[in-house]
Amino acid sequence: MKYYKIILEYEGTNYDGWQRQNNTDNTIQQVVEDKLSTINKSFVLAVSAGRTDAGVHAKKQIVNFELDVDVPPKRMPYALNSLLPKDIMCKDAKIVSPEFHARYDAKGKLYRYRLSNLKIPSVFTRNYVYNIREKLNFAKIIKTAPLLIGTHDFASFQNSGSDTDNTVRTIKRFDIKKVDNEYHFFIEGDGFLYKMVRIIMGTLIEIGLGKLKLKDLENIIKARDRRKAGFTASAKGLTLMDVYY
Amino acid sequence: MKYYKIILEYEGTNYDGWQRQNNTDNTIQQVVEDKLSTINKSFVLAVSAGRTDAGVHAKKQIVNFELDVDVPPKRMPYALNSLLPKDIMCKDAKIVSPEFHARYDAKGKLYRYRLSNLKIPSVFTRNYVYNIREKLNFAKIIKTAPLLIGTHDFASFQNSGSDTDNTVRTIKRFDIKKVDNEYHFFIEGDGFLYKMVRIIMGTLIEIGLGKLKLKDLENIIKARDRRKAGFTASAKGLTLMDVYY
Repeated sequence: MKYYKIILEYEGTNYDGWQRQNNTDNTIQQVVEDKLSTINKSFVLAVSAGRTDAGVHAKKQIVNFELDVDVPPKRMPYALNSLLPKDIMCKDAKIVSPEFHARYDAKGKLYRYRLSNLKIPSVFTRNYVYNIREKLNFAKIIKTAPLLIGTHDFASFQNSGSDTDNTVRTIKRFDIKKVDNEYHFFIEGDGFLYKMVRIIMGTLIEIGLGKLKLKDLENIIKARDRRKAGFTASAKGLTLMDVYY
Repeated sequence: MKYYKIILEYEGTNYDGWQRQNNTDNTIQQVVEDKLSTINKSFVLAVSAGRTDAGVHAKKQIVNFELDVDVPPKRMPYALNSLLPKDIMCKDAKIVSPEFHARYDAKGKLYRYRLSNLKIPSVFTRNYVYNIREKLNFAKIIKTAPLLIGTHDFASFQNSGSDTDNTVRTIKRFDIKKVDNEYHFFIEGDGFLYKMVRIIMGTLIEIGLGKLKLKDLENIIKARDRRKAGFTASAKGLTLMDVYY
């Protein structure tokens, strides 16, 4: 028995997210497990660090699994990529201890959100950048974002229907970089609630539009009520950039 | 009657090139003409500066046409984009004189070719960057490219089957920029023969692979024979960047 950890890169556009579901065959987990099972000649379960939603991308998703067959880690990316569709790619593979768990062992994650504010966006970034046509006040957004850094109860930034009890999370870093005519938001935390990054981004966008005020933020956090925060920003702007162990 | 000139941006991946053909409905020209004809309520012919091949992209394709109906140029991008698929977009529109012809009036064009040399490329650039897995000697490529600058008979760099008599063209600029782990080739000329940029790139790649030598270049040009030059590099790396009038 060999235990592997791989780096997976994917464009989420054409998938119903990472996690296997009963009502669709089109999840990244199922595609990856199917290809691993082909290599292994029996079913392989793949565990990911983050269960990315439909349309969310990954530059560095970490996935672990065990195989009965012995594939040298150096060969693994080529073996897998020859079977995977073009929008999912294995970038690296390593042998890990049998105890390694991509999700439970993760100490932190880094996400990037790409936002633009153009009258007419570009066809080349249509699946990767969320564009808002109405004028955004980025000065206000840039002033608000750092207020989310630290340990807070993020219950208001969790999608309703989630059953997570402990909604306290720590955001370690929240940087904003201007890249050409886009803004890239880098948010690093010890963990994220369901749709938390996208709800944070939707809240910042509403502040940029003047629909919410900077001074509302404290009350939004205090309320522990999803309805107080902004909308859930589009999945396509979001990319899982790294996982820390 | 109103005469328009528009800037069109498109991803060529899912189309059989610009030019209308008998054996396919899936050309960019046909899609654009169909949408313009909807606006005009009668057939509209669209003339482009460059007839890009299947898989070739455009950041700034220039297209001219005439309409019976009067659409203010400022409204044209929104009117067209509400009808166009997501991989074709009108970025700007202007009124021109009835004599303007996007192709015949063009004095020059700028193309970009994106090339990488990675063992495992990225899913995010799979439709935009041509990746060569075998080791390329970029020093040789960078040394060779400028030798193509100037006025030459490019008959060896023209796809066979083309019926162009005059195969003399002038390359004004051929710059190479390293961008992250890619090389971007910017080639500007007064005009280009059929598949000329891609055959130039294929020839440079073969020089980078050691299959052709730098000193062969003079003989390749002299031969006026397509078979002497390198292969036709993949369409996906190529983008029409600008047209000069």
